[in-house]
Amino acid sequence: MTGAPGRSENWTLPDPAVAGDGMYALIRDLYPICRSITGNGVRETLRRLTRMIPMEVHEVPTGTRVFDWTVPKEWNIQDAYVKDERGTRIIDFARSNLHVVNYSIPVRAKMKLAELRSHLHTLPEHPEWVPYRTSYYSEDWGFCLSHRQLSGLSEGTYEVCIDSSLEDGHLTYGECYLPGERPDEILVSCHICHPSLCNDNLSGIAVSAFLAQHLANIRRQYSYRFLFIPGTIGAITWLALNQDRAHQIQHGLVVACAGDAGHATYKRSRRDGAEIDRVVEHVLKHSKRPYDIQPFSPRGYDERQYCSPGFNLPVGCFSRTSHGRFAEYHTSADDLTFVKPEKLAESLAVILAILSILERDRICRNQYPMCEPQLGRRGLYGQSAGRVPDDHTVAAMLWVLNLADGNNSLLSIAERADLPFDCIDEAARLLTTAGLVS
Amino acid sequence: MTGAPGRSENWTLPDPAVAGDGMYALIRDLYPICRSITGNGVRETLRRLTRMIPMEVHEVPTGTRVFDWTVPKEWNIQDAYVKDERGTRIIDFARSNLHVVNYSIPVRAKMKLAELRSHLHTLPEHPEWVPYRTSYYSEDWGFCLSHRQLSGLSEGTYEVCIDSSLEDGHLTYGECYLPGERPDEILVSCHICHPSLCNDNLSGIAVSAFLAQHLANIRRQYSYRFLFIPGTIGAITWLALNQDRAHQIQHGLVVACAGDAGHATYKRSRRDGAEIDRVVEHVLKHSKRPYDIQPFSPRGYDERQYCSPGFNLPVGCFSRTSHGRFAEYHTSADDLTFVKPEKLAESLAVILAILSILERDRICRNQYPMCEPQLGRRGLYGQSAGRVPDDHTVAAMLWVLNLADGNNSLLSIAERADLPFDCIDEAARLLTTAGLVS
Amino acid sequence: MTGAPGRSENWTLPDPAVAGDGMYALIRDLYPICRSITGNGVRETLRRLTRMIPMEVHEVPTGTRVFDWTVPKEWNIQDAYVKDERGTRIIDFARSNLHVVNYSIPVRAKMKLAELRSHLHTLPEHPEWVPYRTSYYSEDWGFCLSHRQLSGLSEGTYEVCIDSSLEDGHLTYGECYLPGERPDEILVSCHICHPSLCNDNLSGIAVSAFLAQHLANIRRQYSYRFLFIPGTIGAITWLALNQDRAHQIQHGLVVACAGDAGHATYKRSRRDGAEIDRVVEHVLKHSKRPYDIQPFSPRGYDERQYCSPGFNLPVGCFSRTSHGRFAEYHTSADDLTFVKPEKLAESLAVILAILSILERDRICRNQYPMCEPQLGRRGLYGQSAGRVPDDHTVAAMLWVLNLADGNNSLLSIAERADLPFDCIDEAARLLTTAGLVS
Repeated sequence: MTGAPGRSENWTLPDPAVAGDGMYALIRDLYPICRSITGNGVRETLRRLTRMIPMEVHEVPTGTRVFDWTVPKEWNIQDAYVKDERGTRIIDFARSNLHVVNYSIPVRAKMKLAELRSHLHTLPEHPEWVPYRTSYYSEDWGFCLSHRQLSGLSEGTYEVCIDSSLEDGHLTYGECYLPGERPDEILVSCHICHPSLCNDNLSGIAVSAFLAQHLANIRRQYSYRFLFIPGTIGAITWLALNQDRAHQIQHGLVVACAGDAGHATYKRSRRDGAEIDRVVEHVLKHSKRPYDIQPFSPRGYDERQYCSPGFNLPVGCFSRTSHGRFAEYHTSADDLTFVKPEKLAESLAVILAILSILERDRICRNQYPMCEPQLGRRGLYGQSAGRVPDDHTVAAMLWVLNLADGNNSLLSIAERADLPFDCIDEAARLLTTAGLVS
Repeated sequence: MTGAPGRSENWTLPDPAVAGDGMYALIRDLYPICRSITGNGVRETLRRLTRMIPMEVHEVPTGTRVFDWTVPKEWNIQDAYVKDERGTRIIDFARSNLHVVNYSIPVRAKMKLAELRSHLHTLPEHPEWVPYRTSYYSEDWGFCLSHRQLSGLSEGTYEVCIDSSLEDGHLTYGECYLPGERPDEILVSCHICHPSLCNDNLSGIAVSAFLAQHLANIRRQYSYRFLFIPGTIGAITWLALNQDRAHQIQHGLVVACAGDAGHATYKRSRRDGAEIDRVVEHVLKHSKRPYDIQPFSPRGYDERQYCSPGFNLPVGCFSRTSHGRFAEYHTSADDLTFVKPEKLAESLAVILAILSILERDRICRNQYPMCEPQLGRRGLYGQSAGRVPDDHTVAAMLWVLNLADGNNSLLSIAERADLPFDCIDEAARLLTTAGLVS
Repeated sequence: MTGAPGRSENWTLPDPAVAGDGMYALIRDLYPICRSITGNGVRETLRRLTRMIPMEVHEVPTGTRVFDWTVPKEWNIQDAYVKDERGTRIIDFARSNLHVVNYSIPVRAKMKLAELRSHLHTLPEHPEWVPYRTSYYSEDWGFCLSHRQLSGLSEGTYEVCIDSSLEDGHLTYGECYLPGERPDEILVSCHICHPSLCNDNLSGIAVSAFLAQHLANIRRQYSYRFLFIPGTIGAITWLALNQDRAHQIQHGLVVACAGDAGHATYKRSRRDGAEIDRVVEHVLKHSKRPYDIQPFSPRGYDERQYCSPGFNLPVGCFSRTSHGRFAEYHTSADDLTFVKPEKLAESLAVILAILSILERDRICRNQYPMCEPQLGRRGLYGQSAGRVPDDHTVAAMLWVLNLADGNNSLLSIAERADLPFDCIDEAARLLTTAGLVS
């Protein structure tokens, strides 16, 4: 554990390029694994993350009731293909796990193209891409392929094999808890149920894992809880099993689609104006890069569960191009070329900046509220008396002195002053050191 | 009485063209009658409406004190003219009732043009049009004519006759009360005191009468009160005589100028943000037609009285081009060509849509507030898992589930979701049927 | 004392041109005096103002503790120059008091240009102008000159003389108190510590003095307190010595930079939405001239002290081009050509209009809240019944009647009606006279 409590330098990436390359390497490593909402793909993914960060891996048995849901059977798959009459594997799970509808039940059959066709999924509008499809909660099977390939299939009999199992087992998720000075928690949640798709959501996994790794090494006010969970059922499971602990979450972010070339997007929490919402907007506004703020909606990722009315946690969603707004979403085109190391690093840096404000935000009190205290004799005022004032730090100190009346946090002051939080925080530190502010 | 309670289909015009033609025919029928704030013109108008809808006709005696006002003498007119020296009727009440200043006292006299001129009213800026003038509360007389005609009058002596009477009698108004499941009332008010003017306010009368006729035949949650009253004094009279009943009015609309070619205009109630204000804006916003929202002001029609500070009822005003904003206002050009059957029908349909939301708005409660309930196993979720979600109904269900925490009505949910109320209402019905929402 | 209480005509300049010329003459008279935060320049300035308005001159001894500050030594200066080797005064205090750094300690020395240079201040970006510099709270000395002149100085030895004194004495300020019908106060504050600079702040002094002179002669609801004080230390001194009286200030304006050709600028008080903020914006909005509203910030003039969190008085700042936004600020170019009589008069008129609203704003109560009272029989409604209404007074009366429910002041009514306060006030007077409003 290094660094003074809450110094902003600890919340900055020492080398964004190194972090970006590291996250990209992790994505490349995890890309081939066939994940789903249960099964060995998730286990293997979590196992690899365990090398990086302290992680508890939970196994929740099939059939466990979690609110209105039931933990499903565990799905695993060894092989799957469609062979033509010459015995050639024309569709092959070994080439891409997207070729099999995720959660397909076992099949071994021969059938005519006409019958097979009803089990084949393509994207006519993107004829070269293979779609990603699932059948989690209805027992079915299917294959995904490019529309171009489908168009070329000749009539005839095909041999279909899906060597999968759907049996009682477990739902697996990872939890990384980093205790801080306070029991209050900040939640970072990402879904880990997608197979070979990079932006959605290997990017979220990579950014979250590197974030946890960074935080594990610095002094933290808040405790942090990282959830690496299958989408929907994972969040529901965690909430059901931790119902009495959920209220400790003071702020939260769902991280998804965090590596594409688009600009940062933040979807507000259901509370719309929670501190997390204000902080993210503050950071993005002062980032000098384009960004997008979206209102809360009950579509999206696991913020749907965290923000359900019975919990109503202040959890927003950080992404770059948000889900469903990029054509490559849920297709084979969301591949290793679609995510960029420098964008992963930018996402990580933005989230660190967000957390660093949450860590440092506080209410200060001006000890000299009657008129301004004399900054000059304390060495806090430049020699430039009589000149046009342009010193940002002096301005920030005057803002802090003026608004530190017990009603405004440093974030509120930064918002009203329209100055970056760091500037207000630095001013508050100077004033605190000088005994002007407590 | 037909239809299930509050089903939206009952609140839709079965055939807008038929309704438009019907309203236009009513206007044509009522157009020739010389109405005023009292007298037989109003009686005859109400008599004809009584054929269509259940209507109680009230007669309030001259001299009745109504708050700060007194019911005036009753005015009736048989004939009126100005004859030139050759005995030709150059201005003739028989040709248009606008030619006589409404409420003119009886006159029989001969006079030079110079003297007559002070009793003649024209519109120099529209030389072909005859203005509409009244002298309700000051005993006076006068004639209205086109400025072109006035310019052509030769010097000489004219014979003037106004065969009118201004005597103790009654103020007449019509009241159509349609009881609903609840005693809470929705008020629809229109003024009936204008003579041969179509948009102001035969259009309001026609739309209100057809609205009452439609509502009389469907099941209603609210009770409805339709007032067909002389402007200002009629509203004041009704409020004075029904002071203890006025608080039952939960929502209200004044309907006027509802048939011209302009787009819909809504003037907010004094409360500015009352449910009626929000519903009208919701309907107009989702109508995909241009519209105009105006803030409350104490100018206008009888909303002035309903929104006086002692009552402060949530009553707005629905019109197309609002009063005083069209050149034809209060002139002979507000004639049968100025109102359009299809615009009357559009106004009626919009008001029905408004009422249908008031009828169906309610507070639902999600019975599964902890995380989302599982829609799929209840058949409420499409087969399209894994695809870009674009199903409006699913979105609406998720919005209802997310916000149905007891604090939000369906209208509030529709507003936050930016979805049409019908869509939210349909989702709430599906969820209620499935037992997810109560 | 003339005039009925609160009649708006008394709050209008009888002859703006005369007032403008008078203020300009005062500025010309005061321009040559070498003022500072203490000393005889301030005394002489206040002495001349005492001829115009009732003024108490306060002398606060050096060393007096005022909150976190101490009243400094008194500074006076008789002469100052730099002589070249030929004995020519190349920089001469007698030519302009800006040539000496304000608060320079006494110096008599010979020195090489290299040494002298560190005491010379210029404005390279405006080579013809002499800057204004101070060294109030650090004992130092210096000269100011044009950059052009500095560039022409030859090497060699210079004789430097500053015949000043910095000794225990007093801080001097002027206070003009005009009692009104109520003890509640309106504060007008201007700083008087700048030497030969016209806009900053001889304009503020002149506008404040003429304002006090005008108010002294009319009937006032509020009591008025005018402070003519050295910037910062003067406001702090007054607040420290009048801590228990400050809460009587209901509204306040700091007046500075009120004579340049720019448009009016108002900086809101810290309370942001105080009545003074609303009134100033109302006046500027209806002035039909361009203007600028700025949010509160803790930079600026003595509103910094009045709005410090321990006082938080509703004090805004009125100026034309605000400080630091004009290039001439704190330079010799802020001279007699930079301020304009007509702009001084405009500033004075605007401030009078602001005060006249504060004086007249009140809560009225409609005595006939049930429906509209009948204006016609009280002669309050035009003969134009039936015509398009366009009478502003009728509109204003209807607004007052509608909103005078005890919750809205006349200013609130004017704001909602989007009508000038004078129009609403006139309507309220008519209605009060008619017994309709109390």
